[in-house]
Amino acid sequence: MLKLNSNFSKFQQNYLFVTVRNKVNEYKAMHPEKDVISLGIGDVTQPLVPAVIDAMHRAVDEMGKTDTFKGYGQDFGYHTLRNAIIENDYAAYGVKLSLDEVFINDGAKSDTGNIGELFDIDNTVAVCDPVYPVYIDSNVIAGRTGDLIDGRWSKLIYMPCVAENGFVPELPEEKADIIYLCYPNNPTGAHATLDQLKRWVDYALENGSILLYDAAYSAFISDGLPKTIYQVDGAKACAIEFKSFSKTAGFTGVRCGYTVIPKDLQFDGQSLNAMWARRQSTKFNEASYISQVGASAIFTEEGKKQTLDTIAYYKKNAHTIKSGLQKAGFEVYGGENAPYIWLKTPNGLTSWEFFDELLEKTQVVGTPGSGFGPSGEGYFRLTAFGSAENTEEAVRRIVCAF
Amino acid sequence: MLKLNSNFSKFQQNYLFVTVRNKVNEYKAMHPEKDVISLGIGDVTQPLVPAVIDAMHRAVDEMGKTDTFKGYGQDFGYHTLRNAIIENDYAAYGVKLSLDEVFINDGAKSDTGNIGELFDIDNTVAVCDPVYPVYIDSNVIAGRTGDLIDGRWSKLIYMPCVAENGFVPELPEEKADIIYLCYPNNPTGAHATLDQLKRWVDYALENGSILLYDAAYSAFISDGLPKTIYQVDGAKACAIEFKSFSKTAGFTGVRCGYTVIPKDLQFDGQSLNAMWARRQSTKFNEASYISQVGASAIFTEEGKKQTLDTIAYYKKNAHTIKSGLQKAGFEVYGGENAPYIWLKTPNGLTSWEFFDELLEKTQVVGTPGSGFGPSGEGYFRLTAFGSAENTEEAVRRIVCAF
Repeated sequence: MLKLNSNFSKFQQNYLFVTVRNKVNEYKAMHPEKDVISLGIGDVTQPLVPAVIDAMHRAVDEMGKTDTFKGYGQDFGYHTLRNAIIENDYAAYGVKLSLDEVFINDGAKSDTGNIGELFDIDNTVAVCDPVYPVYIDSNVIAGRTGDLIDGRWSKLIYMPCVAENGFVPELPEEKADIIYLCYPNNPTGAHATLDQLKRWVDYALENGSILLYDAAYSAFISDGLPKTIYQVDGAKACAIEFKSFSKTAGFTGVRCGYTVIPKDLQFDGQSLNAMWARRQSTKFNEASYISQVGASAIFTEEGKKQTLDTIAYYKKNAHTIKSGLQKAGFEVYGGENAPYIWLKTPNGLTSWEFFDELLEKTQVVGTPGSGFGPSGEGYFRLTAFGSAENTEEAVRRIVCAF
Repeated sequence: MLKLNSNFSKFQQNYLFVTVRNKVNEYKAMHPEKDVISLGIGDVTQPLVPAVIDAMHRAVDEMGKTDTFKGYGQDFGYHTLRNAIIENDYAAYGVKLSLDEVFINDGAKSDTGNIGELFDIDNTVAVCDPVYPVYIDSNVIAGRTGDLIDGRWSKLIYMPCVAENGFVPELPEEKADIIYLCYPNNPTGAHATLDQLKRWVDYALENGSILLYDAAYSAFISDGLPKTIYQVDGAKACAIEFKSFSKTAGFTGVRCGYTVIPKDLQFDGQSLNAMWARRQSTKFNEASYISQVGASAIFTEEGKKQTLDTIAYYKKNAHTIKSGLQKAGFEVYGGENAPYIWLKTPNGLTSWEFFDELLEKTQVVGTPGSGFGPSGEGYFRLTAFGSAENTEEAVRRIVCAF
């Protein structure tokens, strides 16, 4: 008789963004005349840049001719793309990587979710609180979290990220084996300095821990803050880094990103790089060729310029939201080196109360902070990924209503 | 201190096709003047059909304009594509499915590999022998296989598929909880009749087992044999089906397929459909929009006709290989309702000995049967996915050399 993975029954709720979508759909069905603006789920809205579009058209044409047709890919991603990543995202910041340390994927969600397969069930996991739900939920499925009691998983180490510590957590008192960090941070919009990251690298090296560093939003950094964890000495021996073209270049529907696993990353004499290579050859067959060619075009001269323009567009939105809300008297964080604005809910409202009130009064959709963890209660996330018009209109409505 | 998943260290060799590739690259480096023909890895060679190319160009154009840009997808796959699948791949064969029973993915390898996350580690797994390595290797990683002893995993049930049983296994004597079946079969090229599949459905229903049915090659069926396991009464209560556009329409580099999880599939009062929906929302973000639009075009009138032409091209290759080898005195199986030809190695050679001899004498690359499992020893797989010219030349060389 088949036995199921009983960890699934521990979930007490839907995946956060499914819940948000369901609530919004319900509201729209009841109020079909209302113009709902979503600054919620963190999806981008601006089209792919011309350099990417042109490259993808060329790739599609190649797929239509016998001589240039491409089937299965080039081991763990086309070399052109991997070399462009190494040169532009690493060498440019003084970090040396070799080709086989970069694994192309179909977006950071898959790899941040699946990376846990490399580790034993019996490891202590630490997460920032609030946090991107995938880190926790994938560990729930794997069986590392214990049970959900009063909104907290019994075996997880929660590291509160609050205004008082600038949303960069203290080192945990208990020993953590697996530590998820995400900077620029989703959902708080905070970034960590090189010194702050160094404390974590030192901790990991000292305790034999691994850092799972999600840098999916690194394109939004403009203050000289670290673009990759490997700018910290020693990080190659204790950190895996995840990056994505989703937010860098609007690839949420194109699906392409990458994971860096340095060959220095050895535990018990085993190479995590070799283990991940085995995992990927067994369970994955690369991102679409067309997506990979599109991603390569991001790194051409034209592509870089055009992509920066789109990032600047979103950063302007972030500024619009942040300054508008500040003027309206909200307590607001993030939005400088990140596409996320993190605000304190007014009048002691819970995050979901504020979600309902905001939707009701302004038809603006955001994401309740408590959906990202206990320390997110009383906070609320807005994203800068809307159109400029929608963003301005949303801010106008919020300022009027509150 | 981080503890690794110790199951990875149980692997004694590379993923099969990586080993084949390494050996071929070695040979090419030593003999740069030789013209190597690969009928090995099962990758397609013919370009995407015009209907798909046109659709993908339109999709790329949509991604370049604000009004038509697409970000994150439509829950578990675009409805257009899912409806086309339901109508053409199921309703046409008398099988009714609803939209939320079809999950679009980035190819069957990911889902056949990841589906095990729904099940407890403590289940007995049965596989056909020989078998597509992903079924076993993903269970090794999960910890369900025990140890590799003399080329056999100690906790697996191997179900020999040999000439004597027409490469369709007997029901196992031990109770199996999870049973992998693949028809048309990779690597033997055999197909199962409705009656043969019914025995398995009856077994699963009686024993509370689940069938994981891989039908990635169903496009090659032309003898009125079952196109889907759901043509068998009762299968919806015991089977998950995996299909792919990789071999149907040359999508090995495009990455799109689908998994069917009927809502009737309930164990312990839990819906596997709901569990998989939770798994996918947590760890996956859909196939590329462009790939999904391309896949939808396979189901247009033009797309169907053009796709059938490509399948006919490969089936002709299969016939060329099979009849050629038969004339040369080989014992040959498969190749009728499948793109795979399964031959008995001559003169008592082992599979790898024949691999080396074939490469040495004819520069033709195939896949050693023993790489697919113990009962594959003494067999060898050739694929029909080459160009017609290469296939004819390969057969000519083999006939001359043996």
